[in-house]
Amino acid sequence: MDKPLNKFEGIPASTVERLPQYLRVLRAMQAGGVTTTSSSALAEACGITSAGVRKDLSHLGSFGTRGVGYDVGALAWAITCALGLEAVHRLAIIGIGNLGHALANYSGYSKRGFEVAALLDVGHMVGTRTDSGMLIEHISHLERVFAREAVTMVILALPGPEAQAVAERAVAAGVHEILSFAPVVLQLPEGVVVRSVDVAGELQILAHHAATREGTS
Amino acid sequence: MDKPLNKFEGIPASTVERLPQYLRVLRAMQAGGVTTTSSSALAEACGITSAGVRKDLSHLGSFGTRGVGYDVGALAWAITCALGLEAVHRLAIIGIGNLGHALANYSGYSKRGFEVAALLDVGHMVGTRTDSGMLIEHISHLERVFAREAVTMVILALPGPEAQAVAERAVAAGVHEILSFAPVVLQLPEGVVVRSVDVAGELQILAHHAATREGTS
Repeated sequence: MDKPLNKFEGIPASTVERLPQYLRVLRAMQAGGVTTTSSSALAEACGITSAGVRKDLSHLGSFGTRGVGYDVGALAWAITCALGLEAVHRLAIIGIGNLGHALANYSGYSKRGFEVAALLDVGHMVGTRTDSGMLIEHISHLERVFAREAVTMVILALPGPEAQAVAERAVAAGVHEILSFAPVVLQLPEGVVVRSVDVAGELQILAHHAATREGTS
Repeated sequence: MDKPLNKFEGIPASTVERLPQYLRVLRAMQAGGVTTTSSSALAEACGITSAGVRKDLSHLGSFGTRGVGYDVGALAWAITCALGLEAVHRLAIIGIGNLGHALANYSGYSKRGFEVAALLDVGHMVGTRTDSGMLIEHISHLERVFAREAVTMVILALPGPEAQAVAERAVAAGVHEILSFAPVVLQLPEGVVVRSVDVAGELQILAHHAATREGTS
């Protein structure tokens, strides 16, 4: 059987990267009772051009009415669907050090379509609970825990050397999407999507700008 | 007087974004006793093409010798200079919640050219010390603390609504580079460089890929 047609499949990657930002702004508008908006209002809030906004949103269908603007609720829902957030994504956080702890205690997942379903670690924290009451389990039980909790997405907050092997196990257990804070490039099979956040790397990019500005390098 | 010539000023932004990754790989090679490397070895470790590596590194000067490869030490030093890491950058972390705490306790700053010089918060943590012994000071003293500690760079780990006003104060106090974890687009004067990390946004981009793969949206 063919898989069902997905009308959001053709959205350019650069547009997808901006959708979370639009959604955040639209939800803030909704919370403030705003029902219609314009490409220029969205542009200013997101720091891009009006033409860019119109082009991005054209990939989602027709939501703008000339002279009236965009329906905030309809647009927010279209983006929610495009981002696949009508389904709840079940997350496992692997590596419960300082950063993993911070990520585990973050309270904004549920209103954004995510649920933390499992916490895994190797250290002395195994068997204890986080502030939010979740049990930290041993990484050696990864496959069993993932199956039990129907985990579909992973946040890796492990040191570099351990990340590759653990990512491979997560993929073997059926995970296709990984957000990695490990300072390494993960080598994984095609079809697995990895987004990387490298805090030290971001600081180094800022340092380059500082040096260029000061003319000191 | 003209400011001194900065030979790294013309490096394309896309190359700058990859420099931290090259540097990490080169330092791992140095630690392992490797003295020369090739564009294909760097390409594999960084997940890009050999041609891309050669092009990136050509912006730094001539380091490759045909048939021999790149001198690991010389190349690491050139990248260190291009990233402005021969100077030490003095960081202030603003917002010492879960994430700010994790960032404050991260131990990798010094070997990457950064020093945490100040921690600021508004809550009940003010006046206490982190695991690493640093005092958390009140955000109302921002200007005084920044001057005393010669802060040059800021990590914002504040909730969205507070981030804009605090960022403006940091800029007024002389900061030009900000790494923001706040889920908002900061509106700051030209010349200020902001890098943003949005964990929930990254997850939403992964959710789009999951939905597209499954054909469920």
